[in-house]
Amino acid sequence: MDAELFRQQLRFILEIDKQKKIGRQTYLSDGSRKEGDAEHAWHMAVMAFLLADYANEPIDVLKAVKMALLHDVIEIDAGDTYAYDTEGNKTKRKREEAAADRIYGMLPQQQKEEYRALWEEFEAMETPEAKFVNALDKVQPLMLNHASGGISWREHGIHKDQVLARNARTCEGSETLWEYAKHLIEENVKNGNLAE
Amino acid sequence: MDAELFRQQLRFILEIDKQKKIGRQTYLSDGSRKEGDAEHAWHMAVMAFLLADYANEPIDVLKAVKMALLHDVIEIDAGDTYAYDTEGNKTKRKREEAAADRIYGMLPQQQKEEYRALWEEFEAMETPEAKFVNALDKVQPLMLNHASGGISWREHGIHKDQVLARNARTCEGSETLWEYAKHLIEENVKNGNLAE
Repeated sequence: MDAELFRQQLRFILEIDKQKKIGRQTYLSDGSRKEGDAEHAWHMAVMAFLLADYANEPIDVLKAVKMALLHDVIEIDAGDTYAYDTEGNKTKRKREEAAADRIYGMLPQQQKEEYRALWEEFEAMETPEAKFVNALDKVQPLMLNHASGGISWREHGIHKDQVLARNARTCEGSETLWEYAKHLIEENVKNGNLAE
Repeated sequence: MDAELFRQQLRFILEIDKQKKIGRQTYLSDGSRKEGDAEHAWHMAVMAFLLADYANEPIDVLKAVKMALLHDVIEIDAGDTYAYDTEGNKTKRKREEAAADRIYGMLPQQQKEEYRALWEEFEAMETPEAKFVNALDKVQPLMLNHASGGISWREHGIHKDQVLARNARTCEGSETLWEYAKHLIEENVKNGNLAE
């Protein structure tokens, strides 16, 4: 066993504890509070294996689960940029690149390369796993928003078109989840949670 | 696609959202608040693949990650039983069995059987994956307790022997993590976070 390598891994594990404190705009299904980044990642990871059969193309489930679990660690430095924050989204990529350098950089060489590359793959959205995990990243908050009565959408005065734009590529990961997303969006326009 | 099967999966996914609200006694590393069950499961799942090489026996990493992600969903009904709560631990098994029946029972037959069995396997602690994930379940709070200055131990007046007893089988999952656990315990006796 390489003691220095083990220490690097332990430091990384302790570092990502901070992800628990990064808040998101989505409320829990009962509307009691907003969820945190680690909770979101956990939920997505469970969805990644439970719903793997609905991916458009066959996926490597372990790869998809790892991608879901680690896709937001960069927010420890870069913060969560709300999906509908136009200004914040302009600087998002640059802030996240620097965060990835620092945070994945804490890992031993081999793991640093693997997990940094996995995040780049997620962002590039070209492989079956990246497309599917991105679809989950959009559908999970949709499910919670629907369950909570659209509190977050109402607070920010979100329109149907914004949610549709955000889900523009959900169909690439999973036609089934995209059909479900459209259904949820329509339901929430009907009941007034989303503006027309 | 079987629409009813898909609906069952969606209902389960929404049901486990409740795990985010189950509180644990362990504080985050910065001591700012206690962590939740979903956050703990997320942290363990990341450890499961980052530290997989330290398992005493070769493990199926995807299986270990799934086990970590779902091992606490039964606490939605059964609640989190604090490790050092003697009375609560007497009724724990019965409460958790009923919870497993209801919660895993929401899934389609095949997934219900797979994930219920995975939880039973975790509890029985006989396979390499179950031994390793159980070791993570003990070492993750140890790391956080150490980082936070032992707040939770101090609050409950926990003794070294109690932590050692709780970690009695950590060595079965990983000799490396067991050595590390012993080191953390000694450090925290020295600095007074744990009673002698």
